[in-house]
Amino acid sequence: MTKVNLNADMAEGFGAYDIGDDTAMLKIVKSANVACGFHGGDANVMDRVCAAAKAEGVSIGAHPGFNDLWGFGRRRISMSTREVEAMVAYQVGALQAMAAMHGLKVTHMKPHGALNNMASEDKDLAEAIVRATKAVDSAIILLATTGSELLKAGEQLGVPTASEVFADRTYDANGSLTSRKRDDAMIRDPEQAVEHVLRMIETGKVLSTDGVEVPVIAHSICVHGDEPTGPAVADAVRRALEAKGIEVVPLPDVPLT
Amino acid sequence: MTKVNLNADMAEGFGAYDIGDDTAMLKIVKSANVACGFHGGDANVMDRVCAAAKAEGVSIGAHPGFNDLWGFGRRRISMSTREVEAMVAYQVGALQAMAAMHGLKVTHMKPHGALNNMASEDKDLAEAIVRATKAVDSAIILLATTGSELLKAGEQLGVPTASEVFADRTYDANGSLTSRKRDDAMIRDPEQAVEHVLRMIETGKVLSTDGVEVPVIAHSICVHGDEPTGPAVADAVRRALEAKGIEVVPLPDVPLT
Amino acid sequence: MTKVNLNADMAEGFGAYDIGDDTAMLKIVKSANVACGFHGGDANVMDRVCAAAKAEGVSIGAHPGFNDLWGFGRRRISMSTREVEAMVAYQVGALQAMAAMHGLKVTHMKPHGALNNMASEDKDLAEAIVRATKAVDSAIILLATTGSELLKAGEQLGVPTASEVFADRTYDANGSLTSRKRDDAMIRDPEQAVEHVLRMIETGKVLSTDGVEVPVIAHSICVHGDEPTGPAVADAVRRALEAKGIEVVPLPDVPLT
Amino acid sequence: MTKVNLNADMAEGFGAYDIGDDTAMLKIVKSANVACGFHGGDANVMDRVCAAAKAEGVSIGAHPGFNDLWGFGRRRISMSTREVEAMVAYQVGALQAMAAMHGLKVTHMKPHGALNNMASEDKDLAEAIVRATKAVDSAIILLATTGSELLKAGEQLGVPTASEVFADRTYDANGSLTSRKRDDAMIRDPEQAVEHVLRMIETGKVLSTDGVEVPVIAHSICVHGDEPTGPAVADAVRRALEAKGIEVVPLPDVPLT
Repeated sequence: MTKVNLNADMAEGFGAYDIGDDTAMLKIVKSANVACGFHGGDANVMDRVCAAAKAEGVSIGAHPGFNDLWGFGRRRISMSTREVEAMVAYQVGALQAMAAMHGLKVTHMKPHGALNNMASEDKDLAEAIVRATKAVDSAIILLATTGSELLKAGEQLGVPTASEVFADRTYDANGSLTSRKRDDAMIRDPEQAVEHVLRMIETGKVLSTDGVEVPVIAHSICVHGDEPTGPAVADAVRRALEAKGIEVVPLPDVPLT
Repeated sequence: MTKVNLNADMAEGFGAYDIGDDTAMLKIVKSANVACGFHGGDANVMDRVCAAAKAEGVSIGAHPGFNDLWGFGRRRISMSTREVEAMVAYQVGALQAMAAMHGLKVTHMKPHGALNNMASEDKDLAEAIVRATKAVDSAIILLATTGSELLKAGEQLGVPTASEVFADRTYDANGSLTSRKRDDAMIRDPEQAVEHVLRMIETGKVLSTDGVEVPVIAHSICVHGDEPTGPAVADAVRRALEAKGIEVVPLPDVPLT
Repeated sequence: MTKVNLNADMAEGFGAYDIGDDTAMLKIVKSANVACGFHGGDANVMDRVCAAAKAEGVSIGAHPGFNDLWGFGRRRISMSTREVEAMVAYQVGALQAMAAMHGLKVTHMKPHGALNNMASEDKDLAEAIVRATKAVDSAIILLATTGSELLKAGEQLGVPTASEVFADRTYDANGSLTSRKRDDAMIRDPEQAVEHVLRMIETGKVLSTDGVEVPVIAHSICVHGDEPTGPAVADAVRRALEAKGIEVVPLPDVPLT
Repeated sequence: MTKVNLNADMAEGFGAYDIGDDTAMLKIVKSANVACGFHGGDANVMDRVCAAAKAEGVSIGAHPGFNDLWGFGRRRISMSTREVEAMVAYQVGALQAMAAMHGLKVTHMKPHGALNNMASEDKDLAEAIVRATKAVDSAIILLATTGSELLKAGEQLGVPTASEVFADRTYDANGSLTSRKRDDAMIRDPEQAVEHVLRMIETGKVLSTDGVEVPVIAHSICVHGDEPTGPAVADAVRRALEAKGIEVVPLPDVPLT
């Protein structure tokens, strides 16, 4: 693999509230997962991030979440599959319009927080999310965790899919992310993140916290901008990849095979 | 004029809350102004109304409002023109996605409540709303009150425009709607509404509460579904128009000249 | 028992939205569970219901719920016990202030929807809710489902408790309410509700849908005002109780032993 | 005057969002204006700030605002006086309950943002706010801008009042705060703030931006914690006051005459 994508969640502020350093991250990553106003984000933040993404040559994707600003979309909420389908379509469409204001296109979709976690495990929910996105624009790339039900739903329903790994999260022996409640869930040391990423890219395997190697596919690498260490980790990972001759590109430029 | 449109606001419920009789109105009117989740409405209501509109052959339009569910979008809120532009684009895009789930297109846009009132008077705000809609889809018809700044902005910025009159609201000598605080602001008697509408259609003038005739252009006639008398008024108006040989059609089928 | 209370949920509208017939219910029941602005309700609805409750001699209680207007508080949301404690205290205090505007006191507390269901099963959550209410005013009566963990938590923490049965809901053999997904979950026929209530009052047992009798304690009987049949059911139950010589009184007037 | 109060707005975060440095400010000021969940703040932030205020010996007051999280309570919203009365009572009561969880009392009330600005000019609105607070607890001190309609309403309705000046805002020749749109609206230099405050305390007059001196009464001095310079300005002002032998105390300890 000579091309890989680097993505980060963005635009998660709301009104007077800022969260994460979007400006810094947009200079490092090549794809932005833009919050769509439900778990975070609002039309103004989306507008500003679209403008900045365009200026930086960063591709944009929808980052829909539960309608739970108080919980920042991190709390599981039980909804019917049809309700989830409508909720996701709504948010993707809203971002498409913001993108259109800047002459941009929404080229990928990745659910946020609890919605992503639930869709990684629940086939019906995963398919609802994929149907929603496909109905809106069947060319939108589904960006989903390697090995997840969501990724399988995308393949099943025939939309373009990209498999994602995390630069700053540890994995367990099942290939799942370790719980955020664990002390070692996040990798905040840039050197450690670089080692973690290079191993995945070069060997196609992640070393889990149990010491077991688990196969992964890495079209895209996610870094978290809401950690104070986010930009430093992202920057180190990008430099390390480039030093190895791997080009870091927007998601639509990654060969998805 | 042998073709005219009949429109009504729709999909203004939220979660467990219903308001207005969408089912009844969708059998009478030919275009639905669909609330987009800010002043009212949510993804589920939008989803249901899109399905029903498709079944009834009703064209759909976006009905964006202020982000003020508590005030139902009826309270004026001061925002910059750029903020309004982003807020309107967001809502139009959200509805486009819901429509796409049903194989429909959003063919018109009409602002709600206080946003519509402000845009009727304020050129800058009006232009922001038109720019937002045009950026998203330049074929969307702007549905605006006859004689308003909003209608002028649409003409100025080169988007398709349709001029609207109200079947159930009285007018003053300036051609403005009389204040909702007045007892005679609403016309709730179907016969009176019929007389009011036919006069406008046949003479091109409205008889104001002051007894003065004011010129109007009526591509579309609005009836309010949130009044208990809404369906009865709408039905009487539609029958009266058809009895005169005037065809009541979806907004895109009205000759807009 | 010669005195019993009849209670109903109230004040669950929001802004332009109405739900349930508060005016009718306030003429029948003797205690109102007032929504506090999280799952439904707002300061204006609370204000109006407090005024009407005072006029009708109805005692008022706080009816706190999850901060989920979209889901009307019926969706389970995972929160820490401390977060629940703060959330409940906030809502109880808000209603106390509204009551103070009318010279009233908040005399009971009953959680709403999913929060009540979770607290009926989860001891830690139940205790958090009781601690919150007790901290605000230790004289507030906890109104909780007969046999629930919530009722036990109230007894354990030494606050006044009242045990509640439902006039319009069926029970299973464990003494739990049958799921709302079942066709026979709600009792909408006034005669059937009367029979159901009188059996509980006279025998101290409820006949479950399985035909098994389960012991219940009924200091208060709940009727649902958001069902169209609510007022008719409530009225029939009240008349039947009074015909048996049982006085229907505000909750603070019921002997709680 | 040998005793004066220093106050700051607090607890204006929401869910995952932080704003202002509450921890730093609570070590400097002596009274906290606690946001109550409408323009900002939530039950968890209120809970944490009450705990910290108690630990630091800081008195707490309610800081109610418009129900406009998106606009952070800085946008004027038209409401009836009764609606404002209910909205303010609700928020004061909510904070009382949070305070009760910590064995604290709410000892003052100061409206936030646009609500404060409107109440400073509008007698009817001002009286509604005072009535609300008085109904909830007539001992609560109204903290209002020197010379404002709100302060007059408090005196008129017989509640304890404290007159407030701003350490970090400039004044015009009418004694009003200069518009935030002006470059010189905020004083961010600690030395300049100290000079500004000492002049007011020592001469009873503020030097307006026009060079005119305007009489002020300063029971309490407000510093803004949401400015990055807030803690530095607050600390400098407190030290300067103490160096002059003026004791900086919680608001209830200031002689209000």
